Amino acid sequence: MQFHHHGYVSGDPRVAPAAGVGLDRPAELPDEVDVLIVGSGPAGMLLAAQLSQFPDVATRIIERRDGRLVLGQADGIQPRSVETFQAFGFAERIVAEAYNIAYMNFWGPDPEHPGDIVRTARTEDYAFKISEFPHLIVNQARVLDYFAEAAAHGPGRIAPDYGVEFLGLAVHETGEYPVEVRIRHTAGPRAGEERSVRARYVAGCDGARSGVREAIGRTHVGGVSLHAWGVMDVLVNTDFPDWRTKCAINAEAGNILLIPREGGYLCRVYVDLGAVAEDDAHHVRHTPIDQVIRRANEILHPYALDVRQVAWHSVYEVGHRVTDRFDDVDPGDGRAPRVFLTGDACHTHSAKAGQGMNVSMQDGFNLGWKLGHVLTGLAPASLLETYSAERQPVAQQLIDFDREWSSLMARKPEEISDPAELATFYLGTAEFPSGFMTQYGASAIVGDDAHQALAEGFPLGKRFKSAEVTRVCDGNVIHLGHHARADGRWRIYAFADAPAAGEASALADWADWIASPASPLARCTPEGADVDAVFDVKVVYQQRFDEVDLGRVPAAFRPTSGPLGLTDWEKVYAAGPDGWRAADAFAERGLSRDGVVVVVRPDQYVAAVLPLTATEELTDFFAGCLLPQREAAPAQPPASTTSRPVARVIPT
Amino acid sequence: MQFHHHGYVSGDPRVAPAAGVGLDRPAELPDEVDVLIVGSGPAGMLLAAQLSQFPDVATRIIERRDGRLVLGQADGIQPRSVETFQAFGFAERIVAEAYNIAYMNFWGPDPEHPGDIVRTARTEDYAFKISEFPHLIVNQARVLDYFAEAAAHGPGRIAPDYGVEFLGLAVHETGEYPVEVRIRHTAGPRAGEERSVRARYVAGCDGARSGVREAIGRTHVGGVSLHAWGVMDVLVNTDFPDWRTKCAINAEAGNILLIPREGGYLCRVYVDLGAVAEDDAHHVRHTPIDQVIRRANEILHPYALDVRQVAWHSVYEVGHRVTDRFDDVDPGDGRAPRVFLTGDACHTHSAKAGQGMNVSMQDGFNLGWKLGHVLTGLAPASLLETYSAERQPVAQQLIDFDREWSSLMARKPEEISDPAELATFYLGTAEFPSGFMTQYGASAIVGDDAHQALAEGFPLGKRFKSAEVTRVCDGNVIHLGHHARADGRWRIYAFADAPAAGEASALADWADWIASPASPLARCTPEGADVDAVFDVKVVYQQRFDEVDLGRVPAAFRPTSGPLGLTDWEKVYAAGPDGWRAADAFAERGLSRDGVVVVVRPDQYVAAVLPLTATEELTDFFAGCLLPQREAAPAQPPASTTSRPVARVIPT
Repeated sequence: MQFHHHGYVSGDPRVAPAAGVGLDRPAELPDEVDVLIVGSGPAGMLLAAQLSQFPDVATRIIERRDGRLVLGQADGIQPRSVETFQAFGFAERIVAEAYNIAYMNFWGPDPEHPGDIVRTARTEDYAFKISEFPHLIVNQARVLDYFAEAAAHGPGRIAPDYGVEFLGLAVHETGEYPVEVRIRHTAGPRAGEERSVRARYVAGCDGARSGVREAIGRTHVGGVSLHAWGVMDVLVNTDFPDWRTKCAINAEAGNILLIPREGGYLCRVYVDLGAVAEDDAHHVRHTPIDQVIRRANEILHPYALDVRQVAWHSVYEVGHRVTDRFDDVDPGDGRAPRVFLTGDACHTHSAKAGQGMNVSMQDGFNLGWKLGHVLTGLAPASLLETYSAERQPVAQQLIDFDREWSSLMARKPEEISDPAELATFYLGTAEFPSGFMTQYGASAIVGDDAHQALAEGFPLGKRFKSAEVTRVCDGNVIHLGHHARADGRWRIYAFADAPAAGEASALADWADWIASPASPLARCTPEGADVDAVFDVKVVYQQRFDEVDLGRVPAAFRPTSGPLGLTDWEKVYAAGPDGWRAADAFAERGLSRDGVVVVVRPDQYVAAVLPLTATEELTDFFAGCLLPQREAAPAQPPASTTSRPVARVIPT
Repeated sequence: MQFHHHGYVSGDPRVAPAAGVGLDRPAELPDEVDVLIVGSGPAGMLLAAQLSQFPDVATRIIERRDGRLVLGQADGIQPRSVETFQAFGFAERIVAEAYNIAYMNFWGPDPEHPGDIVRTARTEDYAFKISEFPHLIVNQARVLDYFAEAAAHGPGRIAPDYGVEFLGLAVHETGEYPVEVRIRHTAGPRAGEERSVRARYVAGCDGARSGVREAIGRTHVGGVSLHAWGVMDVLVNTDFPDWRTKCAINAEAGNILLIPREGGYLCRVYVDLGAVAEDDAHHVRHTPIDQVIRRANEILHPYALDVRQVAWHSVYEVGHRVTDRFDDVDPGDGRAPRVFLTGDACHTHSAKAGQGMNVSMQDGFNLGWKLGHVLTGLAPASLLETYSAERQPVAQQLIDFDREWSSLMARKPEEISDPAELATFYLGTAEFPSGFMTQYGASAIVGDDAHQALAEGFPLGKRFKSAEVTRVCDGNVIHLGHHARADGRWRIYAFADAPAAGEASALADWADWIASPASPLARCTPEGADVDAVFDVKVVYQQRFDEVDLGRVPAAFRPTSGPLGLTDWEKVYAAGPDGWRAADAFAERGLSRDGVVVVVRPDQYVAAVLPLTATEELTDFFAGCLLPQREAAPAQPPASTTSRPVARVIPT
């Protein structure tokens, strides 16, 4: 965590100084906004937290409910989501309070007494092998609390406008704020009042029955199966020994998916209620809780549940639906999109793979920086076309995966030939439910793979998988990727060739170039902004950290910035040798010993892999997705050498 | 983290439900309180956070300053303090924002150009070897913020009374509230008003010029040396390559101790100002900051500092003082103490070993639970005599250590025969500055060492060094000691003998006994309280976690409690085998394979080590420090078998 950069900070460093529209944020929802987010679920709240990092963008988030969510339905948190929380600054806190999935156990009928269940397999959770982040269970309401805090503590100081209902919208062809949104105040002094708000962009994060989706004429394709499940969050006493372990239970009497919840006592139980008659007309949704509990006891036989409190319960039929496009533009419209759909508004499915909240958050993460870039003039509006193009296929994959998983979960024992099949499927597909299978195709923001061989471990279009390196300035082993926060900046990692710092090398040439007026850094960073305002450039040497002479490291990796012109010491890292304090990141990620440049998007996806010598290709890449901010620029603000302020003393 | 235990919790689980005096805490300082804490520094704030866990004790903390501390002077955080923060629930947050000391480097004169300095040694910080917790640097003001949050979120809902100055006190011989304290309001509507507050106990946490110390007639023994240091927190640019590494610099021009601070930019610099004339009369304290910076530049030659901002600075002469007793009782007084001294009020020394704040916090941790126990009737007032008896020798050791360290730091190069001596001293004494050398002698709360051989790794009187174990209910590897929070409870760890759960064993016999009306658990737990309200009893088996059949684990380790009579699943652990997911705690801590009972105090110090068969000794131990609450008691509340409430549904 870096702070004190603009002078001494006494309080919580997680609270950024207010800036831009955050300095004097109107308490009332104004008539004109840059971005109007409809709905404060996981996608909407992440989007708000992200846009709070762009304080020159006026963002508001409206929510029909009159306050904070009290009971959330989603609870599964993929490692990729924890990685995302890390970027937003609250991973360590949510990990401390969540249930950490260590094992998933499988139960089936006892061959000798088929009416009883026995444990058939224990499998260590996939998260242990796939990521440095855990696989968690925690109430959606708490996830929203943390994003709300991040939104409120960002320089944009964003807080939800509760008690405001979306009624409809129209996209006009002209005007600075072309989206006209009808809303109704449902709480507070203006309750009952209807009015219009004009926005440059609207994000529909308003759930499965999305009004925004309906307003832009998109339809949810798919349907509901004829199979019902009861779900309950319960506090119980039981003799079932795996009550605190995630379990798939496949009994003669039906199926249970058991998910222990945070806090050591609560569990979520999905109880198979079986097939639903074709003419049921959703009558099954009124199944009383006592009946769900009774069914759960039948399935768990010979074990029994003594339910002490039901915190929440529901009955649902599994549905699988996905929207064809996630924005308001059709091919040939000849304009960039103005309205976007995220989360349940464009993909709904069963809850049992624990995917929904996670994929929704990645929708928000994908969209947030793009809106920020376009609205601050860093990128052209066409950048926004990549949102639907990237996220719609992910949603389709999710639906396909979930359909398979939920039908596997709902089988009868006699339909199962191999008792280990479910466990095998669970482990074999681990990368998908962990959230790491997403790979965006080539586009203006994902380069071609001509040089992928230089960095096999950083596949283009997949999220940048962090590796441990040693920070040269202080010898701390840190995760390179964890230094990258959700601040809307691009990351450029220069992995050095073999020569040491200060010697002639491809890296040294690259460093001279990146600091020159010809580089995309100079070209795409706004006049007057800090040299690292848009691009965070870091170097990783192959040597041991104590063999890197900081005094000889190129100036590009020791930039000065901020009002005090202070040197940033945290741009220089060392990778080697393997096993000495950490793994060798070059070996671990298959990086060329001749060096390689890896470009990572603000949402953590790998955008380009290039040789150190490919400066022209790097220039072309950014020319394809960012707008020039100036024709020529000084290589480095010369703050540290030319201006030498007298020491200022802050009175104590 | 355990919650939902009394029903579903929607919000931040770190905020405990208010209870006792926390339910309706008066905004104004009342005329009568149980505990009056004078001063809101590290000792006082920890004490407040601890007593917030005893909501039946009316505790107030007064502070002359009119609000939160803005700039603190202390910044060194021992691993033992981070361990303490863990118990108070904020370690992961403070670690995320602090500077983590990985290395300490040493610099001395270049043999060829003695006016220049060169690096003479790099030493990996001791914290890596000595604890699972890091060695941090973070502003005292932030430490106080976190303790303030813990105090406010505890059931007692304690917040400092700012703007209240201590004037004096008198201890009367009679009355329920025998300590009469004179105070003056220095801020707010009552500013200027003087009044009396009566307290049962007073803790003087009011710093080096303690008014409480003076009021009880204790004197600070020791003096000030004739050697001055300048200290400054500065934001600089520099070519000194180790600016972000802790360094001891021993130059011809003098000495510097360099401590990088949190946030990546700020550093604390202690600059040797040399000997002070005998007739100086503290004139040196007025040394201007420019002169301190000039001296720093002379020492760092050939490197240079370009100071951009001075956040704080001071000049001091090293002093070493310790108070002879830390309470208001002299031998033969025939009464228990009523007034206590903590922190700088009873021990002052140089800042450079980074000890002061740490030792002060341990003073508070030692005293807090004792006051809580006595004031809730769990323990006799004589327990309070152990505070001074235990903490005064620790302070004396601290003064001795610091005197040696600070004189080593202040030597001239020609006084140093072995350049590695300082590094050797630093590493060789690591256990002390880490905070783990403290060992309390035998007393009513530290048993005799007759059976120490059964648990060599848990020395009596030293703090319980946590070990990793696997939680049986869910397969998570966790640190056994981290489950113990600063909640004022005693921990009893039953390390099992070899037989498996359910088989005849010494452990099974012990479990029957501890759950019987004859046990100290039954005898010392108040009527109507939860079975684990005073004692948290856990078991650690020698088997793999997946070989422990939870259904056969004795009921003593699966207690039910709370209004819903819910089973606690987090009392049963497994240690083996070594290297499978974790180390074998039996091997790692030298525990007898015949089993052993380890009793740990609420402040985490090992109180007793006994064989599983020594039930009489365990009874005697607790009879010596706790008061009987009842003559006979049921072994276990029979909640889960006899009362079976109908499922209650919380409306959503």
